[in-house]
Amino acid sequence: MAIAEKIQGFITQSSWIRKMFEEGIQLKMEFGAKNVFDFSLGNPNVDPPEDLKKALRLVVEEDLPGKHAYMPNAGYPETREAIADFLSLEHDLTLLRDHIVMTVGAGGALNVIFKTLLNPGDEVLIPAPYFVEYRFYVDNGGGVTRIVPTHEDFSLDLKAIEGGINEKTKAVLINSPNNPTGKVYDAAAIHGLAEIMKRKAREYGNIIYLVSDEPYRDIVYDGIAVPSILKAYPNSLMAFSYSKSLSLPGERIGYIVAHPECEHILDIMGGLTLCNRMLGFVNAPALMQRVIARVQGMKVDVEIYRRKRDLLCDGLASVGYTVKKPEGAFYLFLKAPIDDDVAFTRALQKERILTVPGSGFGGPGYIRIAYCVGDDTIRNAIPGFGEVLKEFK
Amino acid sequence: MAIAEKIQGFITQSSWIRKMFEEGIQLKMEFGAKNVFDFSLGNPNVDPPEDLKKALRLVVEEDLPGKHAYMPNAGYPETREAIADFLSLEHDLTLLRDHIVMTVGAGGALNVIFKTLLNPGDEVLIPAPYFVEYRFYVDNGGGVTRIVPTHEDFSLDLKAIEGGINEKTKAVLINSPNNPTGKVYDAAAIHGLAEIMKRKAREYGNIIYLVSDEPYRDIVYDGIAVPSILKAYPNSLMAFSYSKSLSLPGERIGYIVAHPECEHILDIMGGLTLCNRMLGFVNAPALMQRVIARVQGMKVDVEIYRRKRDLLCDGLASVGYTVKKPEGAFYLFLKAPIDDDVAFTRALQKERILTVPGSGFGGPGYIRIAYCVGDDTIRNAIPGFGEVLKEFK
Repeated sequence: MAIAEKIQGFITQSSWIRKMFEEGIQLKMEFGAKNVFDFSLGNPNVDPPEDLKKALRLVVEEDLPGKHAYMPNAGYPETREAIADFLSLEHDLTLLRDHIVMTVGAGGALNVIFKTLLNPGDEVLIPAPYFVEYRFYVDNGGGVTRIVPTHEDFSLDLKAIEGGINEKTKAVLINSPNNPTGKVYDAAAIHGLAEIMKRKAREYGNIIYLVSDEPYRDIVYDGIAVPSILKAYPNSLMAFSYSKSLSLPGERIGYIVAHPECEHILDIMGGLTLCNRMLGFVNAPALMQRVIARVQGMKVDVEIYRRKRDLLCDGLASVGYTVKKPEGAFYLFLKAPIDDDVAFTRALQKERILTVPGSGFGGPGYIRIAYCVGDDTIRNAIPGFGEVLKEFK
Repeated sequence: MAIAEKIQGFITQSSWIRKMFEEGIQLKMEFGAKNVFDFSLGNPNVDPPEDLKKALRLVVEEDLPGKHAYMPNAGYPETREAIADFLSLEHDLTLLRDHIVMTVGAGGALNVIFKTLLNPGDEVLIPAPYFVEYRFYVDNGGGVTRIVPTHEDFSLDLKAIEGGINEKTKAVLINSPNNPTGKVYDAAAIHGLAEIMKRKAREYGNIIYLVSDEPYRDIVYDGIAVPSILKAYPNSLMAFSYSKSLSLPGERIGYIVAHPECEHILDIMGGLTLCNRMLGFVNAPALMQRVIARVQGMKVDVEIYRRKRDLLCDGLASVGYTVKKPEGAFYLFLKAPIDDDVAFTRALQKERILTVPGSGFGGPGYIRIAYCVGDDTIRNAIPGFGEVLKEFK
């Protein structure tokens, strides 16, 4: 065989996704892109804020020696300091630049975290539904993924988490606001999770880290707040990305922040910095690090996503679906009218509507609708959703 | 233990490097940065070309929808096409954009390549001296590094390579112009290497890939040319980075090009693209991809490095060292006057000269001097080099 068996396996496993993707391209060629309603990708269609563009221009015009050169693997001290200052206020905690490592997005951040923490066979507990790539990230770090269910409303099932933790558990990975469900774990859930993790860590005499992937932290609706995991649990690491907050996913800029009272904090920060280099990231892109230092606290206009959410949810309700509006992110995890979510996405495809089956996210019987698309795409897709529902009723 | 044992081990192993680094910082604080001669890092001090800066400004001003959004994981089709067109001329071969994957520098490229190719236990053969990080990259991909020596002049020892290839060998990794030696493998060496690899591949009934890391491809002197590995060996993959060619190491932009006649080329390109995503890179930074599409064939003024090389080599010769001028890159791998290269770097440190012991590069008895520094740094360090030589004679 030419390539690694594992990679060949992943390619084969995901071949049906690619097939759907290719059929989508075919549909667009046949009917024109405007007449195909593509809800398959979490690619923000809201523009970055005007002030972000200004900051980028300023940084490009700056006349600094070595402005595109290597900097320390953890990132520019100034950028890390700006972030630490911002987070100190947001989380009501004294954070220093030494607690921050700049990364190639949240994907880079999570790979660096797992490479740093995991010994071969260590387990990472993840509540389902979960972002598809997590299994890869844990595997890259040599760990094993253990999935536990959530409740019907996608809130954390603390009993399931407690039952899933064992002597091999090195970390619990949560993602709130959640991709694919849009669920935000509330303060009580985070507090309860922290209590269980503290108890279980004592029971096994281990350190169990809480790793929180929060790229959608700023995309929340209806006045909901995302509780601070740092405040709730000292052995915690948060992965953040500006991909969604500032609509910059292609630029690959994010960071890891570790709680200052993490046990063995110096080893952890040293490990994260080393792994950033060892994994070939080396450092987060220089130019964007300088931009980010200037725009702390800035975010895209979340009202735009709120409107799209309402347009989609109200539209689907109007044609007969039972929909609960998600609290954050820009995904709706919709219950399929039949058990077979792949068959449901296939039927939608005939109406030129592209979505992703929930099975891939550990949520069979659901589909993920990414509503970070044009308003017209949402409006014009509603009748097709209605037709397919009729078909299955 | 808090972090992974392997990572803890790497941190401990490299603690003396960190100690030297910290002592260097201490020296700079004590004597002023100008009075410390820091040759320890391969961080280009030559500015990017003016036209590169213009291209960056143009790209920033461009009004494109979704210009910072995700693009296909392999990169923008336009960028890949521009590179394929340029490489087709440079290598006299028909390359298409389908043979290119944009990466987060060459470090990203090599990690993506090894993750794609290696099954657990597969061997990667590397001639020493070699870039320190290669062992990590092979290990990240689950492979095993096998080191073979080079000749006294750092040219490829084809017999050693032939003897080092066995039934587990999945790839041979070369780096020319070489870090740390500055050696450029000539056409005869590359041709000979290709013949051996073809013969050995037949003998074992395996595919053996030639992986060539070429970030210094454009940094060569005295009219020397870097032979094309693509022309020499069909099962070849080249990793390139703009870090040195355009002095952009902080921006993390590079690519992989695969030979169009690689066996199983579709699996390979599919694997590379998947691994770019799986490893958390997702894609190379968007903005720099657009810049790169506009500047194919552009490079920094290599004459500046040539002058620095001569300044260093002539200076060292004038105080008694035996020096052969390197053919490329911006490193001199200098034979230490004593066997213990660490002791030699320590002695230089007392003269406020910072270098790196060759042991870390698999070249004990040598030190690496990175001469991508100011001319004055080179000039002012020569007397100190002379003092230390006297001390050991």
